[in-house]
Amino acid sequence: MIIDPPPTAGSPDDSAPGPAPATGTASARRPSRRTVIAGAGALTVAGAGALGVAAASAETPRTAPGSARPDWETCLTVARAVLVRDAEDQPLVPRYADVLLKNGLPRSRMPRKKVLVVGAGPAGLTAAHLLREAGHQVTVIEANGNRVGGRIKTFRTGGHENSPAVFADPRQYAEAGAMRIPDSHPLVTGLMDSLGLRRRRFHLVDVDASGRPAHRTWILVNGIRVRRGDYARSPQAVNRSFGVPAAFESVPAAQILRNAFAPVRKEIEGRKDRELVEGWARVVQRYGHMSMYRFLTEVAQLDDRTVDLVGTIENLTSRLHLAFIHSFIGASLISPDTAFYELPDGTATLADALYARVKDLVRLDRRATRITHDEGRVSIDTVSEGRGGSPVRRETFTGDSAIITVPFSGLRHIQVTPALSYGKRRAITELHYDAATKVLLEFSRRWWEFDEADWKRELEAVKPGLYRNYQVARTPEDGALLGAHPSVPPGHISESQRAHYAACRRTTRDQPEAAGVIGGGSATDNPNRFMFQPSYPVEGSPGGVVLASYSWADDALKWDSFDDAERYPRALAGLQEVFGQRIEVFYTGVGRTQSWMRDPYAYGEASVLLPGQHTELLPYVREPEGPLHFAGCHTSVKPAWIEGALESAVRTALEVHSAS
Amino acid sequence: MIIDPPPTAGSPDDSAPGPAPATGTASARRPSRRTVIAGAGALTVAGAGALGVAAASAETPRTAPGSARPDWETCLTVARAVLVRDAEDQPLVPRYADVLLKNGLPRSRMPRKKVLVVGAGPAGLTAAHLLREAGHQVTVIEANGNRVGGRIKTFRTGGHENSPAVFADPRQYAEAGAMRIPDSHPLVTGLMDSLGLRRRRFHLVDVDASGRPAHRTWILVNGIRVRRGDYARSPQAVNRSFGVPAAFESVPAAQILRNAFAPVRKEIEGRKDRELVEGWARVVQRYGHMSMYRFLTEVAQLDDRTVDLVGTIENLTSRLHLAFIHSFIGASLISPDTAFYELPDGTATLADALYARVKDLVRLDRRATRITHDEGRVSIDTVSEGRGGSPVRRETFTGDSAIITVPFSGLRHIQVTPALSYGKRRAITELHYDAATKVLLEFSRRWWEFDEADWKRELEAVKPGLYRNYQVARTPEDGALLGAHPSVPPGHISESQRAHYAACRRTTRDQPEAAGVIGGGSATDNPNRFMFQPSYPVEGSPGGVVLASYSWADDALKWDSFDDAERYPRALAGLQEVFGQRIEVFYTGVGRTQSWMRDPYAYGEASVLLPGQHTELLPYVREPEGPLHFAGCHTSVKPAWIEGALESAVRTALEVHSAS
Repeated sequence: MIIDPPPTAGSPDDSAPGPAPATGTASARRPSRRTVIAGAGALTVAGAGALGVAAASAETPRTAPGSARPDWETCLTVARAVLVRDAEDQPLVPRYADVLLKNGLPRSRMPRKKVLVVGAGPAGLTAAHLLREAGHQVTVIEANGNRVGGRIKTFRTGGHENSPAVFADPRQYAEAGAMRIPDSHPLVTGLMDSLGLRRRRFHLVDVDASGRPAHRTWILVNGIRVRRGDYARSPQAVNRSFGVPAAFESVPAAQILRNAFAPVRKEIEGRKDRELVEGWARVVQRYGHMSMYRFLTEVAQLDDRTVDLVGTIENLTSRLHLAFIHSFIGASLISPDTAFYELPDGTATLADALYARVKDLVRLDRRATRITHDEGRVSIDTVSEGRGGSPVRRETFTGDSAIITVPFSGLRHIQVTPALSYGKRRAITELHYDAATKVLLEFSRRWWEFDEADWKRELEAVKPGLYRNYQVARTPEDGALLGAHPSVPPGHISESQRAHYAACRRTTRDQPEAAGVIGGGSATDNPNRFMFQPSYPVEGSPGGVVLASYSWADDALKWDSFDDAERYPRALAGLQEVFGQRIEVFYTGVGRTQSWMRDPYAYGEASVLLPGQHTELLPYVREPEGPLHFAGCHTSVKPAWIEGALESAVRTALEVHSAS
Repeated sequence: MIIDPPPTAGSPDDSAPGPAPATGTASARRPSRRTVIAGAGALTVAGAGALGVAAASAETPRTAPGSARPDWETCLTVARAVLVRDAEDQPLVPRYADVLLKNGLPRSRMPRKKVLVVGAGPAGLTAAHLLREAGHQVTVIEANGNRVGGRIKTFRTGGHENSPAVFADPRQYAEAGAMRIPDSHPLVTGLMDSLGLRRRRFHLVDVDASGRPAHRTWILVNGIRVRRGDYARSPQAVNRSFGVPAAFESVPAAQILRNAFAPVRKEIEGRKDRELVEGWARVVQRYGHMSMYRFLTEVAQLDDRTVDLVGTIENLTSRLHLAFIHSFIGASLISPDTAFYELPDGTATLADALYARVKDLVRLDRRATRITHDEGRVSIDTVSEGRGGSPVRRETFTGDSAIITVPFSGLRHIQVTPALSYGKRRAITELHYDAATKVLLEFSRRWWEFDEADWKRELEAVKPGLYRNYQVARTPEDGALLGAHPSVPPGHISESQRAHYAACRRTTRDQPEAAGVIGGGSATDNPNRFMFQPSYPVEGSPGGVVLASYSWADDALKWDSFDDAERYPRALAGLQEVFGQRIEVFYTGVGRTQSWMRDPYAYGEASVLLPGQHTELLPYVREPEGPLHFAGCHTSVKPAWIEGALESAVRTALEVHSAS
């Protein structure tokens, strides 16, 4: 059998205590989410003396064996989830790839079913396709009234959602969500290929004209601006500005972090099969209860200034309180060593293609509000949005089983009757979802590719002497030059906007040299935090859309307090602090922003777990409950990645397909 | 002198490295946020062998001495902030009370100043009044176009903000923000008294008709509903439903938590003066770097099921990742042992009164966007909102000094030139702000006060037989009975609303007995989490507004993903699960909701610090920088409490008044 079994065997103790008769005298059964005693024993065997850190001093807070440490079996379960292995430690991805890309679901003697899929993101659309191809009758229920794809979302003209132009140049588009596909994700890259979608390299690192990594994007922290390549060679000025100890003055932040992670990586590097699974299980057992803050200060023994440095440049500061394991995996993935891909015309072309296969199965504008299930019977109540004055409709869908892809942060507000198991309910309640917010700004020229000669030519075209005036900071501060370049189409910059812009502008004393970058991203300690330039021009358009701010967790929530319109002048100001005041002349006045935490279809960027949640909650996330199956990237250990959604799509399609 | 000195002496090393000349060759100075070596030494002396927890086993992760533990002087500084003591450990509150309530600012030979106050919350309004009374020229700049008070905000008709009716009954009002004033907060209670505001008891615990605590509100968790009093006497059913170990089956959650905190409380209980300061400093040193999760699992050695129980009932689950110290202080304050007060007609009557004293000084609709400062000179750029089509105005204010009361989450987006010190910048960037969200629903009758006879009478008035039909769950599920009682005024329930309501309703199999409570609050594991009934009727109104959901952190962010209108049917459904389906007949169709994290004037509920931030950031929060002074509850160790705002108002007024 090729079905991924539920990570932990369901025990009778795990059944939910039903609603009590009337008042508190129900004799509830005692579910056991974790075997505490077994855990302590296993820990002693597997973990003793192997941590490789300094001896504990008398005042060290003591870990209660077994209470903060999960049992070994749970750690193995999590390790297998990380590695996408089955209970016999065999890799599942080749089997998933076979189903997804080649042969579809296997023949089955089980009866064909009526299947409800809740959510038309990549997981739901893919599971629906696989099940329909295998002969099942499928309906996909989607809350959004005009768009599928979930957190695959491109701000664009047209598409399946038939969007009106969103930028001044209707050819322009930009990613609200998924924007880079790692080469190391075989299901999604294979799927794109099999769907005939031409992918091209996404430049996480900026390139020169011949496509070679240039490392010319900026780091701007503590008032010091330096190109990434220069920082890697000579990190002293930046590192000193954080006040790091002498030992770290000459070590780039990325290297400090790699060194800090080294003892953890040692547990897994060079291992395979069972040894690799056990290595990951040790990582989970030793560090699963730790935040990144705790790991960096107590295990890696970094002082707080070095934590500041690494956090600022390597994007950890706003996530220090989240699980070490999450950021450890993430930092390994999103690094200059990883090759990424993107799709021309936007990642949403993948959603278009997935949608095209199952469009007849999808019911848009149906928000699930209640799920009722019983032996082999599911009923799902939905409501339409009634936006734009149309009447609100209720509709109930029924089926033999259901695949629920709704993020748990949203599932929290959907009543399930009878109640789910204790472990599942806690996971739905507690699984932490992170915020991520993007602010995108459109420019009529790709100024980030300019050299100084380009700047001179273009600024002089606005007004003779302007090139020099910017160099000596002698330009008006009232927003008069906002969108002043002749290439900026009229009609998008109101007087209000100009006033807001002028009020929010950053006073920059210096005029940095031309960036001269293609693609890549810059980092700053100003509120924008991370900025990305497009890797390619949009065909036929001389302009481009910059991801002026990409932030997570606390950094993102601070943007989320502002209404959309308030964000653009602030994002432009932050971008100017990095790239110089003069970029303002190309601003078209059009921006787009996406707060995933405020999004009423996504309920957060992704499940980014808190310390301890990998072992306490994750094993319960994907376990089926009667006719209910759970998919979506939150059921994988690749939250926010399409690959995780696809793993879950194949897994749940197999579960449903093979169930009696 | 009675001025609270900056918690840590500013050293020359703390000055900010200015913006770099052009590219990365600036020789930045090395600020030192904490003396790491001194810390390790102090720790060994003060902390060794005194932790009172089990011996560390070999696999315990080691704390790096000095890196995760702050130095003793910093701990003393934080302890003094907690206790509101000066550097000689003397209590500051009596001196603050003298200034605030009696004698105003002391005579000073320093020159009178032109003072800008940014933010018209309780801190800003109070500081402005004190400074004006002492002869200074004050201007208060407030972003909000029609309201002062900050997180003192009452949904009401009229008031200084001249609000149109917000509920179906225009006499009704409800708190969006501050709703209970602890008796233990002398500045705010004294201020209310001195302003002639009549305060009355807020019933955190429900009372009977004679005003005695009744403990009849509900706990509804894991499908088990029990009154609080019954739970305190017989916690077994609820505790077993979480699967707690036998030893905890008969111990109420509050008691488990008290026991867990006991070793920490021992450090401070019964001590005074210097000993009390040192006791708190030990608490800070030992536990300041811990999350509540870590404390409960590793120090208190609670298993995860018991953490679930305590977290659910005592409101810790969504805040487990936040600093132990914050929740430790909070849990001590918000307990049945604390007496609370409220103001008739709403807490905003306090804002009205504070505003009345300084109305002529306040400039509404001026959002600060940039602060420029120099030796004894401050300039603040502002912009108006331009809502409702009015033109956006920019205005620059200048003064000799400024008191900045903007939460740091908002200050993050205000450029300050020249840059603030390193420690302050990190505090502004990193200080964690929590989410808190309220959903309030209006009912035409105070059904929570009903007994069964009341229910029978009122339901029969809707339709004969309805009382019995609710008891046996034979009532329509299509929302037909929503607002069906004759007392509900027509016109507030649309067909859309009825459809949304019917779709979101919770299927409750049981009909609980009449609540019969006055005031008090219930707790549930459904998304509503905490519910509060008003402590008093609104004069002349037979109805009332229920705080149907009050939630924090992750619990709140899940509500924040929904638009306002989407929240009301969900909040009603959660309330019905606790109190029964039949309450629907009194729903007027009118709700109000407040997401503090999404509020563009508040930028979060309050600064709720992450592990380590009390020692790493707090000492830098309130330190003045040249002519800039920092006030607001986030500069105290009473975030979200008016008392903390008032402490900061007096402190900064004294700072400004006494500066040369």
